[in-house]
Amino acid sequence: MNIITTIQEMKETVAKLKKDGNTIGFVPTMGYLHEGHRKLMAEARQENDVVVASIFVNPLQFGPNEDYDRYPRDEDHDQKAIKEEKVDILFYPHVNEMYPKEQTIQMIVQRRVNVLCGKSREGHFDGVVTVLTKLFNIVHPDRIYFGMKDAQQVAVVDALLEDYNFSITLRPVDTVREADGLAKSSRNVNLSSQERKEAPNIYQALETGKKLVEQGEMDPEVVIEEVSRFIREHTHGKIDYVDCLSYPELEKVETINRQMILAVAVQFEHARLIDNIVFSSNGQPSTAIV
Amino acid sequence: MNIITTIQEMKETVAKLKKDGNTIGFVPTMGYLHEGHRKLMAEARQENDVVVASIFVNPLQFGPNEDYDRYPRDEDHDQKAIKEEKVDILFYPHVNEMYPKEQTIQMIVQRRVNVLCGKSREGHFDGVVTVLTKLFNIVHPDRIYFGMKDAQQVAVVDALLEDYNFSITLRPVDTVREADGLAKSSRNVNLSSQERKEAPNIYQALETGKKLVEQGEMDPEVVIEEVSRFIREHTHGKIDYVDCLSYPELEKVETINRQMILAVAVQFEHARLIDNIVFSSNGQPSTAIV
Repeated sequence: MNIITTIQEMKETVAKLKKDGNTIGFVPTMGYLHEGHRKLMAEARQENDVVVASIFVNPLQFGPNEDYDRYPRDEDHDQKAIKEEKVDILFYPHVNEMYPKEQTIQMIVQRRVNVLCGKSREGHFDGVVTVLTKLFNIVHPDRIYFGMKDAQQVAVVDALLEDYNFSITLRPVDTVREADGLAKSSRNVNLSSQERKEAPNIYQALETGKKLVEQGEMDPEVVIEEVSRFIREHTHGKIDYVDCLSYPELEKVETINRQMILAVAVQFEHARLIDNIVFSSNGQPSTAIV
Repeated sequence: MNIITTIQEMKETVAKLKKDGNTIGFVPTMGYLHEGHRKLMAEARQENDVVVASIFVNPLQFGPNEDYDRYPRDEDHDQKAIKEEKVDILFYPHVNEMYPKEQTIQMIVQRRVNVLCGKSREGHFDGVVTVLTKLFNIVHPDRIYFGMKDAQQVAVVDALLEDYNFSITLRPVDTVREADGLAKSSRNVNLSSQERKEAPNIYQALETGKKLVEQGEMDPEVVIEEVSRFIREHTHGKIDYVDCLSYPELEKVETINRQMILAVAVQFEHARLIDNIVFSSNGQPSTAIV
């Protein structure tokens, strides 16, 4: 595996690869890699001649109350994982390389952000699209890989590609789950043993909501109410939100007559868990982004 | 010359040209082409295998008081000019092709804009960088050509390329002038014969200011005062602004010890004329963008 730390070298390397006719799959990360990231890399490995992963903890997407300096880092572990997934190139720039000075031109995400987790993370997605635009212009990928665990991020990236006419295919990758359905997350280790037993009910709650839609329910509020009830009855977690929105637009709709996301965030004592499912108007699972 | 109106065809055409190893020079315009545009195309023709020009009147860069619908258009004249300059491809999209729906993600220019002409055109450069980012992602140029007549636009494009790591070389092209020094402009026809006689003094005023710097003057305010005096004494025009700023940062500085722009706008009865010169700290003409 080749580790590249400068923008100049990354651009030159990509230009050469492109000239030789290679397709490039790109997995942007903030490091501290877990199974979800590895699945993204494995998908990229299957579909492209060359796989590039980046590790860059992007200060722009941290809010004033979110601790950029204390974001976990584990370089040795990450490089081992990346090698095992047969990634060809790790782009690993220093923050001064990516932001040598303050940006003159800001990107501001105007829609798809003021709901779900974005509601309490003002400016977060502005930072995400800024660094992604930079990375896309440096890496020139043919395909990019993002996990559906953060379905809101996928929706925002979809808007970025569409608004600015990038020639890049967005490949959303299904959430990786434990055998009992619990979405894998580095936060799961912070659950008590009782909470860990309850946590799979979050996914069960989503499935219950989806079943209602399959059976003909068309009112998002009814679905939200049922999912909320299920979580309250089967866990001691505190519901942060349960919402049912159009996807990827993430807008409230009166009637379930298009692709939707059903998404939840539940706060346990030491872990806030999120999960979601995307389905078409008849309740069938659907590809998130066409 | 090949005229392309869809983004899809433009992207496919460029991909093929790139694959064959061609370099692409790009001249984005809003049409109604004059000699300044033709010089951009001629420069692009000299330096690239393939020259692409675009004509697109971008609604996003018009303010509420600026009449987008009445922006002049002359398709036949433009196509003739483009052919004569041996442009290979004209990208000529409809507004619905470029903006099929409202943008979700806005670009906001935070610096370099609240001075000179930008001061009275709030949001103008936001629209400029938005459409340019789209066009760059569609045309994938190696080099882009902009006239130094609009030096502020060149400064903003410079920031766009740098902030977002585009692999594009910005080629600023010198202002085209009449034999007597007057900067060529489609607005010059609106000058009365008396005003037309006076108008070359705008450039003379700039040259006078630059001479002061050559002679050792380091205070921008002294230069501004001298240029203003010269314009007042030699024309009946009303000064809109005379300013002397760092370039391309467009910031006020105490001392002329770096590359500077000296820029003016003068309102005559039926024509507002702008002009500028860029020079290094010793008053020598300099390349605007390195």
